[in-house]
Amino acid sequence: MDNMQLRVVFTAFLFLQSVSSDNVLIWPAEGSHWINMKHIIEELFERGHNVTVAVHTAALYVNYSEPSAITFEVFEVQFTRDTYKDFMTDILHFWIYEERNLSYWDRYKKFSAIMTTGTKLHRQICDGILTNHKLLEKLEESKFTVLLSDPVQPCGELLATKLGIPFIFTLRFSFGSALERLCGQLPAPPSYVPVSMSELSDRMTFAQRVQNIQYSIMYDLMSNWLWREWDSYYSEVLGKPTTFCETMGKAEIWLIRTYWDFEFPRPFLPNFVFVGGLHCRPAKPLSQELEEFVQSSGEHGVVVFSLGSMVKNLTAEKANMIADALGQIPQKVLWSYSGDQPKTLAPNTKLYKWLPQNDLLGHPKTRVFITHGGTNGIYEAIYHGVPMIGIPLFADQPDNMVHMKAKGAAVVLNFITLNTQDLVDALNTVINDKRYKENAERLSRIQRDQPMNSLEQAVFWIEFVMRHGGAQHLRPAAHSLSWYQYHCLDVIAFLCACVAAVVFLLTKCCMFCCRRCRGTRGKKNKTE
Amino acid sequence: MDNMQLRVVFTAFLFLQSVSSDNVLIWPAEGSHWINMKHIIEELFERGHNVTVAVHTAALYVNYSEPSAITFEVFEVQFTRDTYKDFMTDILHFWIYEERNLSYWDRYKKFSAIMTTGTKLHRQICDGILTNHKLLEKLEESKFTVLLSDPVQPCGELLATKLGIPFIFTLRFSFGSALERLCGQLPAPPSYVPVSMSELSDRMTFAQRVQNIQYSIMYDLMSNWLWREWDSYYSEVLGKPTTFCETMGKAEIWLIRTYWDFEFPRPFLPNFVFVGGLHCRPAKPLSQELEEFVQSSGEHGVVVFSLGSMVKNLTAEKANMIADALGQIPQKVLWSYSGDQPKTLAPNTKLYKWLPQNDLLGHPKTRVFITHGGTNGIYEAIYHGVPMIGIPLFADQPDNMVHMKAKGAAVVLNFITLNTQDLVDALNTVINDKRYKENAERLSRIQRDQPMNSLEQAVFWIEFVMRHGGAQHLRPAAHSLSWYQYHCLDVIAFLCACVAAVVFLLTKCCMFCCRRCRGTRGKKNKTE
Repeated sequence: MDNMQLRVVFTAFLFLQSVSSDNVLIWPAEGSHWINMKHIIEELFERGHNVTVAVHTAALYVNYSEPSAITFEVFEVQFTRDTYKDFMTDILHFWIYEERNLSYWDRYKKFSAIMTTGTKLHRQICDGILTNHKLLEKLEESKFTVLLSDPVQPCGELLATKLGIPFIFTLRFSFGSALERLCGQLPAPPSYVPVSMSELSDRMTFAQRVQNIQYSIMYDLMSNWLWREWDSYYSEVLGKPTTFCETMGKAEIWLIRTYWDFEFPRPFLPNFVFVGGLHCRPAKPLSQELEEFVQSSGEHGVVVFSLGSMVKNLTAEKANMIADALGQIPQKVLWSYSGDQPKTLAPNTKLYKWLPQNDLLGHPKTRVFITHGGTNGIYEAIYHGVPMIGIPLFADQPDNMVHMKAKGAAVVLNFITLNTQDLVDALNTVINDKRYKENAERLSRIQRDQPMNSLEQAVFWIEFVMRHGGAQHLRPAAHSLSWYQYHCLDVIAFLCACVAAVVFLLTKCCMFCCRRCRGTRGKKNKTE
Repeated sequence: MDNMQLRVVFTAFLFLQSVSSDNVLIWPAEGSHWINMKHIIEELFERGHNVTVAVHTAALYVNYSEPSAITFEVFEVQFTRDTYKDFMTDILHFWIYEERNLSYWDRYKKFSAIMTTGTKLHRQICDGILTNHKLLEKLEESKFTVLLSDPVQPCGELLATKLGIPFIFTLRFSFGSALERLCGQLPAPPSYVPVSMSELSDRMTFAQRVQNIQYSIMYDLMSNWLWREWDSYYSEVLGKPTTFCETMGKAEIWLIRTYWDFEFPRPFLPNFVFVGGLHCRPAKPLSQELEEFVQSSGEHGVVVFSLGSMVKNLTAEKANMIADALGQIPQKVLWSYSGDQPKTLAPNTKLYKWLPQNDLLGHPKTRVFITHGGTNGIYEAIYHGVPMIGIPLFADQPDNMVHMKAKGAAVVLNFITLNTQDLVDALNTVINDKRYKENAERLSRIQRDQPMNSLEQAVFWIEFVMRHGGAQHLRPAAHSLSWYQYHCLDVIAFLCACVAAVVFLLTKCCMFCCRRCRGTRGKKNKTE
C-alpha cells in the first residue's frame, strides 16, 4: 500500500469513525432543565446515536409513557409524584413569596427544611437506581460510551463512575457557582466575577465587592455543609474513600448553558464550554389565527408575555393589575396564561394556554418580551434581538435579569411590589427608547456570529468524549492540589518564614555589632 | 414587504457582509514569527481581503522587494540591516552560549545591554513610521478595518490606536507571560500554571512552586522596568497620559499560537483564542530524489533533523559529534544544514540546504524528528504524530521541549553538554519505545479533532473584529480595576479592620464589665 492509498484509507477511517453510532446515557433534571436537555438529545438522534434516559417513577417533566425515539429506563423510587410535586411547589413558594419577606432566622429554618427534604428525595432517587442491580447490569451490557448529566440532580456522576464510563455535565449554574469553583476548579476572582445568584454585575463598587466576597464565603460554607451529607454515600457506593466534590470534579466537559452575550467576560478553563442558546433556531411561520392577530397590531407591533413553564397561575389581584397595565399600551399583547381570565383584560390582550414563543419572538412585529427571566426564554429573545422586561420570580431569574439589564437590553421589575404604573412605564421605556432594541440586536449578532453554533459545539464535545474516551488533555492540574497548595499558602508561609529568618539574623548581627561597639567604647572609656 | 421577503433580504445581507473584502494592516515581527504570520495572510487573501504590511527598511525576514500579492508600505529607519542583524546575532549568542555559563552579574550586565540596544532599535522603528506623516496619511486613507500585530515588536498597538482602528495580537509568549498576565489580565495561578520560560510543568513539587513564584515576581519586575521606558513615548504619541501596558491591554483578541495538545490546561479569558498549529496542513508528495532516499531506508524508516531557520551553522566539533551519532543508527537521516560537511558524516546521512519539513514529517516512514524546539516545527511534528528529540537552543525552545517531554512525546538533550552517546541513546529510546509514538499520535488526534481548525479560527476572529468593529463583549472588567482592587486587597483590609474593631470593642466591653465586677466586689468588701 503506497503513501497515497494509506491516506485514503485513513480519511475513510476518520469518516466512518465520525458517523459511527454510539450509545449515550442521559441523567436528566426537572423543569426547564429537561426542556433544554431534549434539544441535545434531538441533535444526538440526528447524528445517528442511540439515546437512553434513566428516569425515576416520580419524575414530573420527563414523560416516559409517551411513544418516543428515546429508550427510557424507568426505575422505582420510594415516593410518589405528588410528594415530588409538593417539594417543587414548596421551593417555588419559598423563592417567590417568602425568601425576601421572612426574617433571617425564619428564612434559614425554612431553607434548611427544604434542603433536608430535597436531599432525602434525591438520596431515594440515587438508591432507586444504584440498588437496582438488574437495571445496572442491563446498563452495563448496553456499552454506553458517555453519560450526559444535569448535576442539579445528583448521582449522574456516581452512576457513570460505577458503570466505568466518562461523563459530561450540562449546567446553567450552581448556588453561588460553588460546584464550578470548588469541584470544577473554575477560577472566579471576586473582584470582577459576581457570584451567581448575587444579582451583581461585573462592575462593582467597593461595597458590592465586599458583598460579593461575603456571598462567596456564604455559598462555600453552605455547599460544603450540603455536600458533606453525600460524602459517605458516594464513598460507600464506589467502595473507596471519596467525596461528592471529588466525584463531581471528574466531569470531562462542563457544558455551561450561557455565552458571552449573556455572561460577563470571566476566566474559564479549557474543559468549560459555553453553549448558551443551544435551543435557539429561526422562527417558523405562525398559525393563521396568530398571524392575523399579530398583523392587526399595525405599526405598533406586539408584546409577548410569558412567566415560563413552572408558573401557570397568578393571584386574581396580580393578574388584574397586570391586565390593567397591558390595556394601556397601543400594542397588541399575547399572554401565555392558563389561569382565570382577569376582569380588567383589555381588548388588545389575548390569553393563550400555550404560545409558540420562539416563532413569536422571531416575528418582525414583536416589540418587547415580558419574561420571568428563565435562561431558555432570555436566549430566544437574544437570538431574535427582542428587548425584554423582566419580572423575575425565583432561582437564577433575578440574577439573569441583572445580566440583561447590565447589557442594556432589559428593564427589571419586582414581582412582589409590582403595580400597574410600573409595568406601563417599563413598557413605554423599552418600546420607545431605541437603545434597548439596539442592544438586544447587538446581543443577537454576538449569539449568531460564533465559530460554531452552540448546539453543534455541545454535540461536538459529547462526540469528542465518545471518540477519545474522555478529554483528559483539558483537565487542569489544579485538581491534584489541596486548597492551601492551590492558593500557594504553603509557599507564602515558607517565603514569609525565610524573610523573618533573614530579618531575625540581621537584627541579631546588628545587636551583636552594637554590643561589640559599646563594649569597645566602654573599655576605651575605662582606659581613658 | 412581507415576513418571508424580509428574511430573504436579511440572509442576503448577512452573506454579502461575510464575503465583503476588507483592508487589513499587518505589523510583523522577525524570524519564525513572520513565517507564522504569512499563513494567516495567505488565508486572508484566500477570503478576498486586501493585506498591507508596514515594514521598515532594515527588516531581515520580510522580503518586501520580491513581487507579492501583499502591499508593502516600506518606511525608513535610522539604522542598517547589518546593525539589526548584529543585534539578532548578539541575542542568539547570549541565549545559546552565554546565558547558562556567565556569572549572575555578567549575565545581568550583558542582558541589560542587549535589552537597551533592543529598546533603542525598536524606538527607531516606531519613530520611523509615527513621524512619517505622509505614510500615516496614506494609511488613514486606506480605511483599514483591523490591524494584526505580533507584539514581540512593539508599536503595532500604537499605530492602530493612532489610526483609530481595532487591533488583534498574534503571540507565542512574552517573557514570563508578563504581557498576557499584566496587560491582558490573563489569570495564571502560580500553583499549577508554570511561568513561560521557567521550564517547569503543571505538576510542580513544593520547591518548584517556590521557584515558579520567584520567576513570576522576577519577570514582573523586569517587564515593568522595560515597559516604563515606553510609557512616556506612548503618552506623547497618543497625546494623553497612558502606559505601554494600558495600550497593549486594548487588544480585541489575543491569538495565542499554542493549543491544548501543547499547552498545560490553564485558565484563560474569552478574548484569548488558542490557535496553535495554524500552519499545519497535510503533507504533499516528496520530490523523486527525496522519495527514493526515504524509501531506501526500508523498514527502519528515516530521521528528520533541523535546527530551525535561525541557526544555519554549527562549530566543526559539534557538527562532527552529531554526524558521528547519526551514523550509528540503522535509519536514514535527512539533515537540514548549510554549514561545511562534517568529516564524520556517515553514508546513511544526507545534508540538505533546505528540506520540505512538513512533507517529510507527514511521510509514513518518518520515525523521529530532531528539532531545536521552535513552536512551528513542534506543531508540524504534533500534527503528523511524530515523536521528537529536542536540542533546544534559545528563547522559548527549552520551555517548549519541557511541554513535549511532559506529554511523553519527546526526549530532551542539552546542546552545550551534548555528546555522541547521548544522541545515540536518545534516538534508540524514541524509536524503540513505542510510548513516544503513541503519545505523539494522541497529540496529533487532539490537534486534528477541534471544533474548527486553528487557522480558520484565527481568521474567524479577525473577521469578527472587522464585521463588528471590535470584540468588546469578550473584554473582562478586570481592565478597569487597579492591582489592589483586582486582588481584593482593599476588601480584605476592610474586613480585617472590621474584625479588629469587633475584637477591640469586645475586649473593651469585657474589660469594662470586669472592672465593674471588681468595683462592685471592692465596694462589697469595703462595706463588709
